[in-house]
Amino acid sequence: MDRFEVSYRLVANDRNEAQSLAEAVALEDTLEIPRDVVPAGYIEDVVLGRVEAVDQTDETAWSARISYHIDAAGRELPQLINVVLGNASILKGVKALHLSPNADIDERFPGARFGADGLRRLTGRATGGYVCPVIKPQGSSAETLARLCYLTARAGADIIKEDHGLANQDAAPFRERVRLCAAAVARANAERAEEGDHTRALYLPNIGGHGDQVRDLAFYAKEAGAGGILLIPGLFGFDAMNRLAQDPSFGLPIMAHPSHLGPYVLSPDHGYSHGMLFGEMMRLAGADISVFPNHGGRFGFSVEECAEIVTACRSDGGIGRPILPSPGGGMSIDRLPDMIRLYGHDCVYLLGGSLLRYGDRIGDAIREMRAALGS
Amino acid sequence: MDRFEVSYRLVANDRNEAQSLAEAVALEDTLEIPRDVVPAGYIEDVVLGRVEAVDQTDETAWSARISYHIDAAGRELPQLINVVLGNASILKGVKALHLSPNADIDERFPGARFGADGLRRLTGRATGGYVCPVIKPQGSSAETLARLCYLTARAGADIIKEDHGLANQDAAPFRERVRLCAAAVARANAERAEEGDHTRALYLPNIGGHGDQVRDLAFYAKEAGAGGILLIPGLFGFDAMNRLAQDPSFGLPIMAHPSHLGPYVLSPDHGYSHGMLFGEMMRLAGADISVFPNHGGRFGFSVEECAEIVTACRSDGGIGRPILPSPGGGMSIDRLPDMIRLYGHDCVYLLGGSLLRYGDRIGDAIREMRAALGS
Repeated sequence: MDRFEVSYRLVANDRNEAQSLAEAVALEDTLEIPRDVVPAGYIEDVVLGRVEAVDQTDETAWSARISYHIDAAGRELPQLINVVLGNASILKGVKALHLSPNADIDERFPGARFGADGLRRLTGRATGGYVCPVIKPQGSSAETLARLCYLTARAGADIIKEDHGLANQDAAPFRERVRLCAAAVARANAERAEEGDHTRALYLPNIGGHGDQVRDLAFYAKEAGAGGILLIPGLFGFDAMNRLAQDPSFGLPIMAHPSHLGPYVLSPDHGYSHGMLFGEMMRLAGADISVFPNHGGRFGFSVEECAEIVTACRSDGGIGRPILPSPGGGMSIDRLPDMIRLYGHDCVYLLGGSLLRYGDRIGDAIREMRAALGS
Repeated sequence: MDRFEVSYRLVANDRNEAQSLAEAVALEDTLEIPRDVVPAGYIEDVVLGRVEAVDQTDETAWSARISYHIDAAGRELPQLINVVLGNASILKGVKALHLSPNADIDERFPGARFGADGLRRLTGRATGGYVCPVIKPQGSSAETLARLCYLTARAGADIIKEDHGLANQDAAPFRERVRLCAAAVARANAERAEEGDHTRALYLPNIGGHGDQVRDLAFYAKEAGAGGILLIPGLFGFDAMNRLAQDPSFGLPIMAHPSHLGPYVLSPDHGYSHGMLFGEMMRLAGADISVFPNHGGRFGFSVEECAEIVTACRSDGGIGRPILPSPGGGMSIDRLPDMIRLYGHDCVYLLGGSLLRYGDRIGDAIREMRAALGS
């Protein structure tokens, strides 16, 4: 295939309207000029998006497959996203459902460095779901947060994720916080190793600072001993994540957080499908772990939407390596058995605010999570 | 005021539900822990968002004012956006309508460097609307694009904006294109000056490349003679724009393009109001000019939504300097008289694809635009 494809859901009243809207998307995301002034030759034949098929799926909904040539995107992710859903994101009734990569995409956007398999190696956790406490709340001192890191790591946590609201505020500035938390997790890991435990906890600080500091802060975290990072593509851009993922000198796993991305999935008529945003786009941008709100928590995702995300994170034909889904958002330990049925073992199970109810006994919560996960 | 405020539209069936949702937003965007485990003292009193008022506006719609302390945001824009509409962007039925800055915001986020007044000075155009051709399509050679720059600048264009799809593709790589286009505009400006014209055209290349190259590419453009830049915050992040706006060594105006931002405004129940996204958020992020789709073009914005954007760009009580609205999206010269009634003279009038119908006579289109704008 010399072109990659994106399928869209289009809102239209009849076939003509659907076909016109599909042609509009193909134009809008590439040339953005009226069809009658498109220059013949390379621009029309190669650069212009091409409508491959338009099929009715519902009374007012149509499915359109549109193919694009890599020349329209080039080598940088921002322009690839511009082609997939740039100006067309502003057209009424256009939702991107699925990206089918071709060899050009595979070569230029290789995806996650570690993915699901790599995380097994990095944590030493050969089987079973990952126990992932979330360290919070913001406003706490770096010492308080580091203590939570130590207690949860000591009790056997696999991944220790910072709350996405821990940025660079005065209460716990990024560098001070990361230094103390990484040291706390290192101490717990050393104690685990002494006891013969072959697993270790990875501490993932949230990159908090300016957009042009992402690389510096990520490398600072690495030097301090972090086991990976948390990054918010909805604030820093998907390419910020991909640049770290593709940088061999960084070489740590990346967990993507969904903050600020809600409007891309909440409307049935606009943005991305749940699977495309939290699965395919995250793989495209090099995330190893994709955080999203579990059904039945504080957010309104359905079971089907969560299942779609999981499939998109894991599918074999997707971009790069399969990655780990990470459902969260108001979870509690008694929901874990139910969650395992949906998410299985290749999954990072988040537990956040409710951990704080345990106070100094937070280690008990980690052990209860492990027991509930049956691993 | 020791706190800044954000007003939200909430979907709820009764006052209790609305109040609960407002409290959920205040928690979600700051501490993200259950209310009963919020630590007393600084975290509860200062860091936690505070619901100031909840008022019914419609049968199922409520307006909530929530105040936040700057300590929850710190000094960097990504975390401020996290507080304004981070995780709450994923809650069903929450739309941010308006940001009321306080002295903390004014001090840490001073907004546009030039704004509406500054653009008068930079272009030498003392009165009247700005004529702004858009150079396209992608797939054209750098020479072809530079020729369009020359012809439109020579005919009296004020601002020459690159199409937002001109990134760094092989057909016209960023650096080569910017060098040739900037030189072409400089030549036209020199010829205008020789004829006694006191105005000049500003060439605004689209920053196309990786997210971590934005600063380098913007400075490259400046060295090459660009009069400003076009940047897409929906791909590179709002902070990428703000960092350039706040950097005194850059010192060029910034035009913001709405690509990939559609889902933030298209649903009545999620994201931002049109005025908040294309007015207030752009001012917050330091844009001098905010591009958005005009009503009645290819996109579905209403007259009222466009008027709201204009008000938010210009209001005196807003963040930093008033900025210039820039409606576009399928415009033609015969619509200009009508547009002037809505947008007035402090406005950048975009004309894109339809210019290409003029071929080598594209200069005539610029002169017709100027005549239609009556300046």
